[in-house]
Amino acid sequence: MTDTAVPLLTDLLASAPTNWGRWGDDDEVGALNSLTPERVVAAIACVRSGKVFTLSTVFGTGKDPVWPGRAQSQRYNTLDRGPFAAGKRESNPGGTQYADDFIAMFLQGATHYDGLGHVWYDDTLYNGFPAESTVGGLEKASVLPIAEHGVVGRGVLLDVARHLDKAVMDKGEAIDLETLLACADAQGVEITNGCILLVRTGLIGSYFHREPDEFYADYIEPGLTYSPELVEWFHDMEVASLATDTMANERTVHASGAAFVLHAALMRNLGITFCEILNLDALADDCAEDGQYDFLYAAAPLKVAQATGAPVNPLAIK
Amino acid sequence: MTDTAVPLLTDLLASAPTNWGRWGDDDEVGALNSLTPERVVAAIACVRSGKVFTLSTVFGTGKDPVWPGRAQSQRYNTLDRGPFAAGKRESNPGGTQYADDFIAMFLQGATHYDGLGHVWYDDTLYNGFPAESTVGGLEKASVLPIAEHGVVGRGVLLDVARHLDKAVMDKGEAIDLETLLACADAQGVEITNGCILLVRTGLIGSYFHREPDEFYADYIEPGLTYSPELVEWFHDMEVASLATDTMANERTVHASGAAFVLHAALMRNLGITFCEILNLDALADDCAEDGQYDFLYAAAPLKVAQATGAPVNPLAIK
Amino acid sequence: MTDTAVPLLTDLLASAPTNWGRWGDDDEVGALNSLTPERVVAAIACVRSGKVFTLSTVFGTGKDPVWPGRAQSQRYNTLDRGPFAAGKRESNPGGTQYADDFIAMFLQGATHYDGLGHVWYDDTLYNGFPAESTVGGLEKASVLPIAEHGVVGRGVLLDVARHLDKAVMDKGEAIDLETLLACADAQGVEITNGCILLVRTGLIGSYFHREPDEFYADYIEPGLTYSPELVEWFHDMEVASLATDTMANERTVHASGAAFVLHAALMRNLGITFCEILNLDALADDCAEDGQYDFLYAAAPLKVAQATGAPVNPLAIK
Amino acid sequence: MTDTAVPLLTDLLASAPTNWGRWGDDDEVGALNSLTPERVVAAIACVRSGKVFTLSTVFGTGKDPVWPGRAQSQRYNTLDRGPFAAGKRESNPGGTQYADDFIAMFLQGATHYDGLGHVWYDDTLYNGFPAESTVGGLEKASVLPIAEHGVVGRGVLLDVARHLDKAVMDKGEAIDLETLLACADAQGVEITNGCILLVRTGLIGSYFHREPDEFYADYIEPGLTYSPELVEWFHDMEVASLATDTMANERTVHASGAAFVLHAALMRNLGITFCEILNLDALADDCAEDGQYDFLYAAAPLKVAQATGAPVNPLAIK
Repeated sequence: MTDTAVPLLTDLLASAPTNWGRWGDDDEVGALNSLTPERVVAAIACVRSGKVFTLSTVFGTGKDPVWPGRAQSQRYNTLDRGPFAAGKRESNPGGTQYADDFIAMFLQGATHYDGLGHVWYDDTLYNGFPAESTVGGLEKASVLPIAEHGVVGRGVLLDVARHLDKAVMDKGEAIDLETLLACADAQGVEITNGCILLVRTGLIGSYFHREPDEFYADYIEPGLTYSPELVEWFHDMEVASLATDTMANERTVHASGAAFVLHAALMRNLGITFCEILNLDALADDCAEDGQYDFLYAAAPLKVAQATGAPVNPLAIK
Repeated sequence: MTDTAVPLLTDLLASAPTNWGRWGDDDEVGALNSLTPERVVAAIACVRSGKVFTLSTVFGTGKDPVWPGRAQSQRYNTLDRGPFAAGKRESNPGGTQYADDFIAMFLQGATHYDGLGHVWYDDTLYNGFPAESTVGGLEKASVLPIAEHGVVGRGVLLDVARHLDKAVMDKGEAIDLETLLACADAQGVEITNGCILLVRTGLIGSYFHREPDEFYADYIEPGLTYSPELVEWFHDMEVASLATDTMANERTVHASGAAFVLHAALMRNLGITFCEILNLDALADDCAEDGQYDFLYAAAPLKVAQATGAPVNPLAIK
Repeated sequence: MTDTAVPLLTDLLASAPTNWGRWGDDDEVGALNSLTPERVVAAIACVRSGKVFTLSTVFGTGKDPVWPGRAQSQRYNTLDRGPFAAGKRESNPGGTQYADDFIAMFLQGATHYDGLGHVWYDDTLYNGFPAESTVGGLEKASVLPIAEHGVVGRGVLLDVARHLDKAVMDKGEAIDLETLLACADAQGVEITNGCILLVRTGLIGSYFHREPDEFYADYIEPGLTYSPELVEWFHDMEVASLATDTMANERTVHASGAAFVLHAALMRNLGITFCEILNLDALADDCAEDGQYDFLYAAAPLKVAQATGAPVNPLAIK
Repeated sequence: MTDTAVPLLTDLLASAPTNWGRWGDDDEVGALNSLTPERVVAAIACVRSGKVFTLSTVFGTGKDPVWPGRAQSQRYNTLDRGPFAAGKRESNPGGTQYADDFIAMFLQGATHYDGLGHVWYDDTLYNGFPAESTVGGLEKASVLPIAEHGVVGRGVLLDVARHLDKAVMDKGEAIDLETLLACADAQGVEITNGCILLVRTGLIGSYFHREPDEFYADYIEPGLTYSPELVEWFHDMEVASLATDTMANERTVHASGAAFVLHAALMRNLGITFCEILNLDALADDCAEDGQYDFLYAAAPLKVAQATGAPVNPLAIK
């Protein structure tokens, strides 16, 4: 699929900023280091009314929004009332009975955090770890250190879809830095250093009422798109984590033809952890109503050893 | 396995309190209703230093602490640096490469929340839903409504193991109400209405350095044990959720011989959601050091439709 | 989905023949009892040239032909050269290394035998076993007794697609008894009592070069369709097993609107084991060429306890 | 685990015979090429009484005999009578209902054939294919070509356990060539060129009535053990396939300390396909009774693309 006209990331990002070494040679959580205890305490001030939002999608229904190539999750009961009713299993002493279940799924097949080693180029992961350390399981920069750390801080929602007066952004519609900042301005929310950025396109929420064929046809997601200015801004603002209601957190193909450039520039170079496939619709409605676009964001993916990513159900507490 | 000497729960709990109907006939989250916005706001006051703890266990290592009968989780890479290095797969345009993975696991095979319909007796789940509604998938009182709601409030750690001067409580060692309250007193922590109770036995932390054969031999977990007083106290205190570092949140067999009596009395009757298989050791060490045993507790299990339970990585923010 | 105009099988098959009790009240293999040692010895006579054909489809490619609602199989390496090359795993003493893998799949998600209890009506399985015995796992008439027994005898291929001068039969195209017998006549093959019947429509082979959307649109399979004469003929001929290159071995909806009528009449009533999703194209080409449409058929599905069905790779030896 | 005293296979097998190139540079089925049509026809002569034996183990029971490190298979119903009885699912038009199920398992976690690329040394698989071709899935010498080919020929059972007057051979008990030939002599069976050899130790059959702890303690399997003479004999006899009632088809550690030497000498060098984890007890009893130790052997593993191995239920027809 390599096209000679497509620039190599080694060229495109040759002078792009990195955070390698900034938090030590062994660091595996990257920009989460910006979530200092002081910032956690400060983020508490965003809690005013006590409203709680859970930001993941529902899965296990046979209609999970997954990236093409990943399979639908398969959840099955291994026990329930059935065998007891059929006389095939006895109650526990005293009379309790119970249900149990099993799942087979892609770890990135639902709302999830990526480990910083999920995507790389030039044979090298975030912080200089060798790409071969991913073989058979991520020895370095898996999602585990992120899960151990947790992602707690001031969350800011930038509801770009609403800012553009759209229910859902179009396929391949790009968000540049100017649009992002204009959205923040229009919302009247300040983006402070070390915050957790949530960008809403409406895409994932729309999945559940669209036909899969139409949804996946000519699949290019809307979202942020690479520019040197955008990357510098994320760097300067010390954005701790980027979460969106798309599967890949960026317009998946850049205008140059290069794919996943923000995965390269933000995740691999700057160590900014990505949280993907959120459903931000209910939170966005509430923010539009009360005008409060910041909140305490609290999320911790599952602690799966060596995993490329892990499911999570993030909380926004206003 | 039914022994005529073992009392039936229909008798043992004949006059025990229930919360059925209290929050409406359709309620599926039970005591989480006690986590009012006011209490969420009040819980914020527990955040003082900005320290964050993630309370789940690590899994996917081949040594997951699972209830006998549940299988170890199986996590495998579906893609990593290997196929790129072997020339079996091309990079994306621009040069990015990535890793991906898949897991097969019991939904209750790691730190998890139970749905309120996970355990029942007398053919009836929490709030009067029929047990047959569990067949093939929980139509009612699955973990999904809990995942949609989130569990956010004032958490209180009762480190009973430390209170008893033990690294780990003994097999089958029971915690009664008196011990629980003495522990709170000794710790100098107040248990307020509508809080989330975390009880530490040391069991799960010990799993990782014990031989499985020894750990599982004559397997009866230490923990809270049924008494009418204990149940009344949980009811009066409006405990919103019970989380422990054991697999079943209670001494699994009551002195009477009946099994899972607290699942029956607290979960099925009172609608108190259980969170199980936490690792509370690091949090407990910190609490012992700074003397602060309360914190903002923020947890949200995965939104798995119809599931009996779902994995979670709870946060404690001090 | 029940339509008042659709006849109930209890009516439609009220006077249809059954083999219940014929081989004992505990029998779980049904018409396989027709495969007597004498018939096995006789079938040997069909082996003339020593050609061997394997009749299952290839799966694990991401394009498995599965019945709508069943998921694609997921196969992944758990070990291969990668971790050895990356220095993450040491060779065995002496220097061997190895590869290993894992699969998650529907047991009926590839070429497979059904257990006789896979489909039923009127709350009753083959031989009178109660339908509730299927709950949680087939206690009776699972595929296991069939796997223990094996399916060995004289196989006869009826290449109906070729007989009709078609590469693939049309969606919903029905095969009646007359057509079936005319096909045998045209082929010059005798159908003897107690044989294993293979019926070719061309459907499964076509799957691999058709677009899934087109293949699954308005999905009604071509194949045998219910008539009292057809069922009587199967009964009289003591057909031991029916194998086809479709997913359901019959035109899935009968002209009356009733679904899976042959599953009811042949499998549930007569105990004729079904083998589904074969690829008969190479065998059929060979039979057309040498004019020999019979062979030693030897198949044994996997011995999966309590399973509704199990994968198999049947052999035809000419 | 490498011990300097352990010889490297590159040295130990430096002058050992190979079949590389013998059947072409692209050959992936190795010694199965010895199963010529003439030999298939000749093998038919072994069928005398029409008795059929199926040689795999039963699995999915929670007590599968698997190699240490492989997980137990997990089989679950995805549908059965339960949801119909509970009113959660409607019957098909006409009234049929059905059961369906799902499995997660190691492809080598039950009776199975290995692909010739399953084990290698010196970075090279059978026939000179590079070991890196295994990465992510076996591009060469997977089990698929074996499954496409089938394994049909004259089978010969050598019941070494019975020959040694043992129900089960001891842990680590070695079978050398002399013992093997003496067993054949005592049984009065001739080993002809191009046959399929079945060697019985009693191990797998014993698994089902032994405690797992005892069975797996100090786990070294009994079985054939490497000697230059043994390898030459397999080569000279053109043994097409080796099948045993153990998990690894050889005394897993050779006297020299090297592991899996016969995997190296027979599978990787000579291209002899291994079938493992058979249960030969019923067949052996019958052979002892009627004195006939040869039969038509017919087996075909599942056609799983790129798989290291695949389950199978081999047939012996006497």
